Amino acid sequence: MPVKLSAPDPASLLPVPGVELGIASAGIKKPGRKDVLVMRLAPESEVVGVFTQNRFCAAPVTLCREHLHGESGIRALLVNTGNANAGTGEDGLMRARETCAALARQLALKPQQVLPFSTGVILEPLPHDKIIAALPAASADLRPDNWASAAEAIMTTDIVPKAASRKVTLDGVEFVVTGIAKGSGMIHPNMATMLAFVATDAPVSCEALEAILRYAVNKSFNCITVDGDTSTNDSCLLIATGVTQAPVLMDDGDPRFVPLRDAVTDLMIELAQAIVRDGEGATKFMTVRVEGGRSEAECRQVAYAVAKSPLVKTAFFASDPNLGRILAAIGYAGINDLDVGKIKLYLGDVVVAENGGRAASYRDEDGRRVMAESDILVRIELNRGPAAATVWTCDFSYDYVKINAEYRT
Amino acid sequence: MPVKLSAPDPASLLPVPGVELGIASAGIKKPGRKDVLVMRLAPESEVVGVFTQNRFCAAPVTLCREHLHGESGIRALLVNTGNANAGTGEDGLMRARETCAALARQLALKPQQVLPFSTGVILEPLPHDKIIAALPAASADLRPDNWASAAEAIMTTDIVPKAASRKVTLDGVEFVVTGIAKGSGMIHPNMATMLAFVATDAPVSCEALEAILRYAVNKSFNCITVDGDTSTNDSCLLIATGVTQAPVLMDDGDPRFVPLRDAVTDLMIELAQAIVRDGEGATKFMTVRVEGGRSEAECRQVAYAVAKSPLVKTAFFASDPNLGRILAAIGYAGINDLDVGKIKLYLGDVVVAENGGRAASYRDEDGRRVMAESDILVRIELNRGPAAATVWTCDFSYDYVKINAEYRT
Repeated sequence: MPVKLSAPDPASLLPVPGVELGIASAGIKKPGRKDVLVMRLAPESEVVGVFTQNRFCAAPVTLCREHLHGESGIRALLVNTGNANAGTGEDGLMRARETCAALARQLALKPQQVLPFSTGVILEPLPHDKIIAALPAASADLRPDNWASAAEAIMTTDIVPKAASRKVTLDGVEFVVTGIAKGSGMIHPNMATMLAFVATDAPVSCEALEAILRYAVNKSFNCITVDGDTSTNDSCLLIATGVTQAPVLMDDGDPRFVPLRDAVTDLMIELAQAIVRDGEGATKFMTVRVEGGRSEAECRQVAYAVAKSPLVKTAFFASDPNLGRILAAIGYAGINDLDVGKIKLYLGDVVVAENGGRAASYRDEDGRRVMAESDILVRIELNRGPAAATVWTCDFSYDYVKINAEYRT
Repeated sequence: MPVKLSAPDPASLLPVPGVELGIASAGIKKPGRKDVLVMRLAPESEVVGVFTQNRFCAAPVTLCREHLHGESGIRALLVNTGNANAGTGEDGLMRARETCAALARQLALKPQQVLPFSTGVILEPLPHDKIIAALPAASADLRPDNWASAAEAIMTTDIVPKAASRKVTLDGVEFVVTGIAKGSGMIHPNMATMLAFVATDAPVSCEALEAILRYAVNKSFNCITVDGDTSTNDSCLLIATGVTQAPVLMDDGDPRFVPLRDAVTDLMIELAQAIVRDGEGATKFMTVRVEGGRSEAECRQVAYAVAKSPLVKTAFFASDPNLGRILAAIGYAGINDLDVGKIKLYLGDVVVAENGGRAASYRDEDGRRVMAESDILVRIELNRGPAAATVWTCDFSYDYVKINAEYRT
């Protein structure tokens, strides 16, 4: 069960002027399940994205990159679950193009104005005919107050839909930021098997929107791991419709840049953490904070070694303070000149290790007390510099194995 | 249960002239369990070792490095299970030194002539008094035909003891190579939570023995992974007692070098594969072979990405040919200029993927047939160079989680 995570109240999800959403059931994996989402964007919307670094990137990712670099403004998004259209070669590209063309016809756009997204099983042909057949129903459903339903439509093994909104007032004008995301296995940054779509009605230049997206993703989706597997389909889109009237936010010199960036970042952190809380089989949510490193990169490296270790994750599942496993993970993180004698390890407020060994004050019952909680902070002080980094992860349970062993059944 | 692995027939384990082994029960973790092993080596034995790269290396590893660099020849090994003496700082070093001193007194040696080894739980003080109290019994038990019992004494979560022998005739003289090893979690090279002790009665110079060990370890223990966790205690020792008379094998120019090296390598591969077959919770043994890479390093990188992926490993556990997960792992292995269109993926004799997608000839039932076996070959052709590498791994099951969640109970 998700760790302290419930479905968002639909009433809390604020429509974004310039964005309409429509949902349909194409019967891709299971009949009757919502599995197709269409988002229509106002003309002049700016759209930027970051995508998986996986070399076996999915056909829709290839098309997204192509269409985003094209001349025509993006006007629609088409998302399907149940099939990733990855590892599908030329045939997969062709099928993805056909879905874009079909939606373009439906909405009177050019095919290059549509961005396709797919998530689900890899290496199986996309049933594009089913998706195309569902487009009239999805288009008929288009409306601005459909975010809650959209969050459901993009779920795969997610248990809880993930969506959030923020309001941000910039120079006296109130804007909305609303986003949805899905996890929940093959989750590791750069990025995760995740899709995230975040939109605002603020008018923002493409350049400024790119800067906001990169900053926010680095502080959110690129700080999580469930199983260390980087998916073929990860995509995170940031949309600025500009429908609400105001001068265009051109660059980071604009005083409105930082507040908008921070609102987007804050929302993406909420969505990213929700993905971890709903990680496959998760029973615990762990924050791994590494401080006192020479660079943020090395702090991240240590945090990820701890957050990815199956031995650490199974110990958390068992609520067993077998904390030597954390030291072992720090030790193999790849920082060759690490002085282990300087490291301090904290579990919650408890000092576990210092001076290269177990802290004299440490008692097993203190460790057990913290491990019994469902939200746990692991803090590591490297004591060799000023940098810090945080990674969020979950534990490793029987259910992770079960979910992934039975994924296709 | 271990995958096609049974305990070695004690009669098949050949004594190595110049090596005696003694076992005792110190009651470190469980009363009555064999948990202490002493090995006594003939004078003039050459001993070389490779050790964990983990920065949080255990106290015994630190002492081994110190003693191996000392002036006095190594004459005894002292191994305990049930406690790793890792993450134990200065106090851990002191306790390890005391066990060496006690065994040295017992056997009339200098403390620097003893190498200590520990395996078990991290971050808990070594019960050195219990070990020292068990030394008289272990010493009284010293005899050459004790390898089978020694293999049992070094087990932790291993189900099956691991030991093997080879005979090798060099220039008309027959020599023996016998070794033991233990796994079975925290297994990832450079090296694994593993201990391995291999001995021969051949007379070999320190330099030649080093060369043989590095070659053999690279082809064996450094090609396996169970869970990707690199332990604090990994050690692999190679001993040449030189008790059987022959001219000393000085260097790799000696025509006896290659046959001896290959015998040691062959034996270490058997032990390394046994560790994977007895990996925690293993139900399947997988060979991941990557061919056609530009370098062995990049082949290894791809092989490890596949072999470590929890999603790949759970799919194998389920015998589910969800083979897109293998493509995803290849894609995130970190080879930035990889042309996925050139890759061919085979499962056993079945072509699964080519031209960036599923092979036209692939049928799900073919995949299922291969996945149903307990020994499975995954072969990946990168088609960009002449290099190749092989990694052995096992699947990821409920029992892996169970074993590691309950490790300390």
